[in-house]
Amino acid sequence: MRRVDNFNPGPAALPLEVLEQVREELIDFRGAGMSVMEMSHRSKEYEAIHNEAQARLRRLLGIPDDYRVLFLQGGASLQFAMIPMNFLRAGHRALYVLTGAWSEKARDEAARFGEIAVNDWATKGGYRDVPDAIPEDDGSFRYVHITSNNTIYGTQWPALPKTASPLVADMSSDILSRPIEVSDFALIYAGAQKNLGPSGITVVIAKDSFLAEANADLPAMLRYSTHVKSNSLYNTPPTFAIYVMERVLAWVEEMGGLAAVAERNRRKAALVYEAIDGHPHLYLGHAEKRARSQMNVTFRLASEELERAFLSEAADKGFVGLKGHRSVGGCRVSLYNAVPIEAAERLAQFMDDFARRH
Amino acid sequence: MRRVDNFNPGPAALPLEVLEQVREELIDFRGAGMSVMEMSHRSKEYEAIHNEAQARLRRLLGIPDDYRVLFLQGGASLQFAMIPMNFLRAGHRALYVLTGAWSEKARDEAARFGEIAVNDWATKGGYRDVPDAIPEDDGSFRYVHITSNNTIYGTQWPALPKTASPLVADMSSDILSRPIEVSDFALIYAGAQKNLGPSGITVVIAKDSFLAEANADLPAMLRYSTHVKSNSLYNTPPTFAIYVMERVLAWVEEMGGLAAVAERNRRKAALVYEAIDGHPHLYLGHAEKRARSQMNVTFRLASEELERAFLSEAADKGFVGLKGHRSVGGCRVSLYNAVPIEAAERLAQFMDDFARRH
Ligand SMILES: Cc1ncc(COP(=O)(O)O)c(C=O)c1O
Ligand SMILES: Cc1ncc(COP(=O)(O)O)c(C=O)c1O
Ligand SMILES: [Mg+2]
Ligand SMILES: [Mg+2]
Ligand SMILES: [Mg+2]
Ligand SMILES: [Mg+2]
Repeated sequence: MRRVDNFNPGPAALPLEVLEQVREELIDFRGAGMSVMEMSHRSKEYEAIHNEAQARLRRLLGIPDDYRVLFLQGGASLQFAMIPMNFLRAGHRALYVLTGAWSEKARDEAARFGEIAVNDWATKGGYRDVPDAIPEDDGSFRYVHITSNNTIYGTQWPALPKTASPLVADMSSDILSRPIEVSDFALIYAGAQKNLGPSGITVVIAKDSFLAEANADLPAMLRYSTHVKSNSLYNTPPTFAIYVMERVLAWVEEMGGLAAVAERNRRKAALVYEAIDGHPHLYLGHAEKRARSQMNVTFRLASEELERAFLSEAADKGFVGLKGHRSVGGCRVSLYNAVPIEAAERLAQFMDDFARRH
Repeated sequence: MRRVDNFNPGPAALPLEVLEQVREELIDFRGAGMSVMEMSHRSKEYEAIHNEAQARLRRLLGIPDDYRVLFLQGGASLQFAMIPMNFLRAGHRALYVLTGAWSEKARDEAARFGEIAVNDWATKGGYRDVPDAIPEDDGSFRYVHITSNNTIYGTQWPALPKTASPLVADMSSDILSRPIEVSDFALIYAGAQKNLGPSGITVVIAKDSFLAEANADLPAMLRYSTHVKSNSLYNTPPTFAIYVMERVLAWVEEMGGLAAVAERNRRKAALVYEAIDGHPHLYLGHAEKRARSQMNVTFRLASEELERAFLSEAADKGFVGLKGHRSVGGCRVSLYNAVPIEAAERLAQFMDDFARRH
C-alpha cells in the first residue's frame, strides 16, 4: 500500500487511522450486517452515528446549548445563497468583509437578495492581509460576513473579530484547526472537505435567536428551519459522509482536542514558512506575516521556470497537491489537521534541498 | 462478516461485489497513494471517475447526445424546488400528476413559483393505481411532472406516459431498474440512494433545448446552467459518492444492462407478490395489480397484531427494512437492483411459512 504526502487543498488528506477503521467496517458495520451506506437514515444505527457526530462537534468546539448543529448538502457554495435568502429582506443591509475569492463569491450571491456593503481593505492590498478592524460595522447590519481562512490566497484572521452586528463566518478551510469562541458568532458554516471529512457534507452552526428571525417563505430545502425541526433528517442526508466525519471528529478528540491540534498545526506551518523565509531569493511568500494562514501556505518561486521545476520535482518525490489555485497560480501547501508533521518535515527538507540546488 | 437480507427503502442494499472493491481501494486507490475521498476534485484521477460515471449512465440508459448528465447535491427534495425555480415564470403553468406522497411534495414546492394544475385521479383512489392517461395535458404546460415509481405506496407506471408538454420525471426509486426512452423526457432526476449508489448524490438528465429556456436570475448553485457549464464541477462535488455510483454502474453493465436487470427485478417482485396473492386471508396488497411496483412491494396483514408479529419474526430472521413508511404504516419490501434473488426467495419462503402458521 502506497501513501503519498497529501497537501491537497480540499478534498484533502484524512487521518490514516480513520481510513483504516472505515475500511474495516465497510461491508459489515459493527455486526449490523450491512455497510453504513446501506442503512436507512431512519434506522437506530444511523441515527446514533448522526447524533454522535453532532455531540462530538459540540464538545470539540464548545458549542453553547442555544446553538443548533446542522448537516446540509450543497457545499459552502450553497450557503453563500442560503444565508442571504434566509436572513435578508427589504430594508436589510449586510456587510461583507472581502478577504479573498470566496468572500467575493459569497458577496456576489448576497447581492441578489439585499443591499450589500463591503469592507474591501484587503482587496486593495491584493489579498495579502486581513483587516485589523471593521470600521463600517456600526451595529446596524443584519449580519457581517467574514471568511476566517482564505484558502486561495493563504491568509487567515490571526484573531477572529468581535462585531457589533451578528457575525457570520465561512470557516470552510480552518474550522476545527484551533479553538474558537462560538458565542461570538450568529452562524458558522463550513464545507467538510478540509478538516472535517469527505466532500458532500456541509456543517452549519447557528444561534437559536438568529435562526428565529429567518425568512419563512422559501422552498423547504432552502429554509434553515426545515433542517432545525428535523434534526437534519428532513430528507436523506449524505449518511456515509456524516459517518466518516464522525470518525474524524473522534480522531480529533483522541488527539487531545483543538488546543493540541492547533499546536500541531502551528508546528507544521512553521516548518514550511521557515523553508520559505530561509531562502528569500527563491521563495516569495504571498501573505503578510501577521496574516499567514496555518492551513494554506502560498508562495511563488523567483521565476516561472523555477516554479515548474519545483512542482515537477515535488510531484516525482510523491508530494501531492502543491499547485496553487488555477485563479492565482504559484504554489500552495495545504496543511489541514490530518496532514502528519512528518509530511511537513519532508516537504520543508525538500524545499531546503531545492533551494540549495537553485 | 455478517450480511443481512436488506430490503431498505433507501439508502438501500448495494452490490456486495461493489462494496468489496470499494474496501479494497479505500486507502490507496489503484496506486494513487490516497483514498478517493482525499483526491482533489480538480485532479486527473478524480475527473476520470466523474466522466466514467457519466459515460456509463449514458450507455446504460441510451441517453441521446443532446442531453446533459448532471451530478448535484441536495437529493430529489432540492430538485422539487430547482425545477420550478428554473423553468417557471410569470404566465407559465405546470401540470403535476399526483401518484403519491413524493408527487405531492414536488407539487407543493412548485406552487411557490407558478400556477400549478394537478391530475389527482390517483389521489382519489388512495394511491392504489396510476392514471392510464393525462387528459389535462393539452400541450400548453411548461412541463408535466410525474413520479415514475411511488416508493411509499408501492405503485409504478407500468409504461411511462408520452406527453404533449415537456415531460419531467422523478425517477428516484426506479431509475435503472428497466429500460426507458430518454428522448420522451425533458428532464429526469433521481436521488442516488436506491438504484444508483449511496445517498448524497442526485442525478439530473436533461435535454439541451429544455435547459436553454431555464431562468438565469438565480443563485449560481440553483441554476442548472451553472452545473452544465462546469460539468458538475462548479464547486466540490460529493466525490466519494460519485465514485461508488460509478462502481455500481459498472456492476449493472456487467449484469448485462437494463434489459437483464429488469428481468431479474421482475423475478424478484414476482416471488413476493406470489406470496401475497397465495395467502389473501393474511396479506393485503396495497397496489392494483396493473400498477404494482417492481421496486417497492407494499402490503398489510389482516390485523395489526399479526403485522407486529410478522415484522418482529422477520427482524429475528435477519430481514431488514420491512416496516412501511411512517406515514402509511404496514409493510414494504424494497427490491432495488442490488437485492439478490436469493434474498427475495428467502423472504417469500418466510412469508409462506408465516402464513401457514397464522
Ligand atoms: C473558504 C472557502 N469557502 C467556500 C468554498 C467552496 O466550498 P464548496 O466547494 O463546498 O462549495 C471553499 C472551497 O474550497 C473555501 O475554501
Ligand atoms: C420517489 C421519491 N422522490 C423523492 C424522494 C426524496 O429524496 P431525497 O431524500 O433524496 O430528497 C424519495 C425518497 O425516498 C423518493 O422515493
Ligand atoms: Mg481565498
Ligand atoms: Mg512577502
Ligand atoms: Mg409515494
Ligand atoms: Mg389488494
